Amino acid sequence: MRDHRHFRYEAIARQIVDHIEAGLYRAGDRLPSVRKLQETHDVSATTAMRVLVELEQEGWAEARSRSGFYVLRRDPLRSADAPAATKTASAPSLANVNTLIRRIFKAHGTAEAARRILPLGAAEIDEELLPHKELAAAVARTLRTGSARVLAYGDGSGDLQLRRRRAQLLGGRGLTLIPDDIVVTAGETDALGLALMAITRPGDTVAVESPCFFGILQWIEALGLRAVEIATDPVTGIDLDELERVADELPVTALALNPTFHNPFGFAMPTDRMMRLLAIAEQRRLPVIEDDVYGELHYGNRSRKPLKSFDSEGWVLHCSSFSKTLAPGFRIGWCVPGRFAEAFERARAPRTAGVPTLTQNALAHYLEGRAYRRHLDGLRHLFASQAERVRSLVLDRFPEGTRITDPEGGFVFWVEVPPPFDALGFHEAALDEGISTAPGPIFSASGCFRNAFRLSVGRRLTADVEHGICRLGEIARRAAVSS
Amino acid sequence: MRDHRHFRYEAIARQIVDHIEAGLYRAGDRLPSVRKLQETHDVSATTAMRVLVELEQEGWAEARSRSGFYVLRRDPLRSADAPAATKTASAPSLANVNTLIRRIFKAHGTAEAARRILPLGAAEIDEELLPHKELAAAVARTLRTGSARVLAYGDGSGDLQLRRRRAQLLGGRGLTLIPDDIVVTAGETDALGLALMAITRPGDTVAVESPCFFGILQWIEALGLRAVEIATDPVTGIDLDELERVADELPVTALALNPTFHNPFGFAMPTDRMMRLLAIAEQRRLPVIEDDVYGELHYGNRSRKPLKSFDSEGWVLHCSSFSKTLAPGFRIGWCVPGRFAEAFERARAPRTAGVPTLTQNALAHYLEGRAYRRHLDGLRHLFASQAERVRSLVLDRFPEGTRITDPEGGFVFWVEVPPPFDALGFHEAALDEGISTAPGPIFSASGCFRNAFRLSVGRRLTADVEHGICRLGEIARRAAVSS
Repeated sequence: MRDHRHFRYEAIARQIVDHIEAGLYRAGDRLPSVRKLQETHDVSATTAMRVLVELEQEGWAEARSRSGFYVLRRDPLRSADAPAATKTASAPSLANVNTLIRRIFKAHGTAEAARRILPLGAAEIDEELLPHKELAAAVARTLRTGSARVLAYGDGSGDLQLRRRRAQLLGGRGLTLIPDDIVVTAGETDALGLALMAITRPGDTVAVESPCFFGILQWIEALGLRAVEIATDPVTGIDLDELERVADELPVTALALNPTFHNPFGFAMPTDRMMRLLAIAEQRRLPVIEDDVYGELHYGNRSRKPLKSFDSEGWVLHCSSFSKTLAPGFRIGWCVPGRFAEAFERARAPRTAGVPTLTQNALAHYLEGRAYRRHLDGLRHLFASQAERVRSLVLDRFPEGTRITDPEGGFVFWVEVPPPFDALGFHEAALDEGISTAPGPIFSASGCFRNAFRLSVGRRLTADVEHGICRLGEIARRAAVSS
Repeated sequence: MRDHRHFRYEAIARQIVDHIEAGLYRAGDRLPSVRKLQETHDVSATTAMRVLVELEQEGWAEARSRSGFYVLRRDPLRSADAPAATKTASAPSLANVNTLIRRIFKAHGTAEAARRILPLGAAEIDEELLPHKELAAAVARTLRTGSARVLAYGDGSGDLQLRRRRAQLLGGRGLTLIPDDIVVTAGETDALGLALMAITRPGDTVAVESPCFFGILQWIEALGLRAVEIATDPVTGIDLDELERVADELPVTALALNPTFHNPFGFAMPTDRMMRLLAIAEQRRLPVIEDDVYGELHYGNRSRKPLKSFDSEGWVLHCSSFSKTLAPGFRIGWCVPGRFAEAFERARAPRTAGVPTLTQNALAHYLEGRAYRRHLDGLRHLFASQAERVRSLVLDRFPEGTRITDPEGGFVFWVEVPPPFDALGFHEAALDEGISTAPGPIFSASGCFRNAFRLSVGRRLTADVEHGICRLGEIARRAAVSS
């Protein structure tokens, strides 16, 4: 990967960010014009323009039609109904979530039975929202052009065309890669597991966000690791002071986090905090696993750069997949293991044959054109446009004092309900009425968050779904009354 | 699984086997007729017939047209050119094969470059021999009938239709299963890894055959286990006395073996030895991982029962895939974990989403009809018919004293070349001439077998392939002369 710091425009942008952080520019101030930047820094108009676009893309500024670029307020919007920041766990613990998760997901029973349930639990995207015709056409094309080849063992690191196209697409988010930087995996789950295997040994301690995606806890449990949960703010992300303090006190081997459209909180970690996080990682030589699976699902026009795009030293193992946007059932993900490429290869060694050829080739075909971009635009628009309605339904129908996150991307919401509320009992009562939810405790190695649940709305907010959310509110109220 | 011992016909067959083993019947003796068996055991004609068919299927007897069933000689055929039995390693060792294997398989470079190499190294089946049109039709049918569904996350344990059909097909080899006994995995590699994770912890010792499939050594290395290599006979399989002795002396946690059409030796472990192996496992409560990936590729008419079919106590974790017969690139395998189902589920827990839906559904469609049976018949006939020619080419063209196995199924051969011969140098010299081989040391945790290599002929024995084998012989001779 190229070191982005070598670009002149980025150095200038960085300097302006320093000025914003130092208070020299304030929210609403107009930034220097292209001409002014040309003069001040002795650069071309193109470079000056790139400085401003960079500042816009990183969320420091916004373009106003015909009048230039203006500084945005520094802190992301914090709505009054958002949950408070969580606390740091007192000690690392062996994760113990698999039994609970199995119980919860087994409740769905067969795929048949699951189809009769309104699935607001698992973070799944509705089949109806996936481009199945285009993907079927891509599969058909793959079969026409190489039906014999797709039956053979593929390249262990993944289909070259797919990696090339993936690299191009990530380039649009500020991450400059060549195909060899990318290893294709069997979904993101596989990437996360291999990343953990590459950088830890059984008994090691991994720092995670609190709450965090339960999949990482499942791996921590399966690999015999310990998790230490770090306080996390539902708007700005993991508490970096706490992270430093914990890393001083405990032998933390790795950090795993989900900075962009966090599951379950929905925030995008601000750029300045990403930079500080990387400084901490570099200083302590701490590998960082970045889960970026929702990273392309930003609301609004501004795309978000992944943590990996600022990682000039290679400490980040960037993991993601196509499961939240395109084809969960294809099980295709990837890892950009950075400086841990050798260790990642060692962990992956037994799987010399890699992942299936057919689905990789079909995805590569599909990604060739502009269809993916159009499809993503459609998803973003849908999820952004219905988020406010989900929030207001929850705030209307759940007990007084209920809080809900205000996501900046993705399609999950974290709901905290005041006592008496028990997420596990609530889950079972809701399931009895044909609605699944994801109870808070599966997002914690130490069993926290019995007062909360995750609501996933990876589907159109139809009358049925709205009705389902209202029913959940009634169940929560009933519990409050009956206790 | 049903306990097969409850069947009357099996009890009678067992009794006759005891008589054969005790010398009461000898090779060439005529067994009792159906009518005689009816009288002696007071059973129906159907049951009596099943006794004889059972004895035939297990290799104890053969039917001669219109004159009844005759006892076969007890020991499988041992050709004069076969290698001798190997020795037991003196101590368990950390496997250290991944670096070597990577070096060897990396030599192929890209998929592009690999296509220019004559691949007699990896145990791959040639794309040309795969039913690609039928599978493409099955994929197309899957897309037509449920293109939206195949994009969604599937059932974690695998597609029900696929498991049902797989169970039916294994029934034909004497293994009675219901779909719930089977977990679909991402190829056999995945099944082997999960099986090891289910029954071991880092530092444990696993007994393996010597030589053994290097994939199991790759997992042993990746999971931080130790391997102890048990003497193995190229005709009758693992030395059971040695296994008992080693299990007495060392804390062996598990046994992993490949009893039916062993890779690289090609034998099928005789039924009586399988029974004794299971008695050892039951007595010592020793989990046994059975790799059965070549199990359907028997030469001749007699199919072979997997070890699992005799496993009434559930100690066997039966692992296999469709990669040696149908679609390596689909990466679809399975495990029948027996009494370790819970532990296997725990190891698999992070991968709740299972394996890809599209390829599973397509395989299920393909397996519905009789196409698979016809396809297997074709493969068996091909591999059986060309095995003798491969052997005579090797014996003709390699240095005097070279030995080669006489496989009973599958498509791999183990070649031992007298000194001076170095399998690693030979591998590199052959690769320089565009031919890949699999050097002996990758089949051993302790680096044995520098005097041997595996020759895989999963393809038609065309003039080109024959020429390639002759070239290998010349290279081996040249090495002998130049040393």
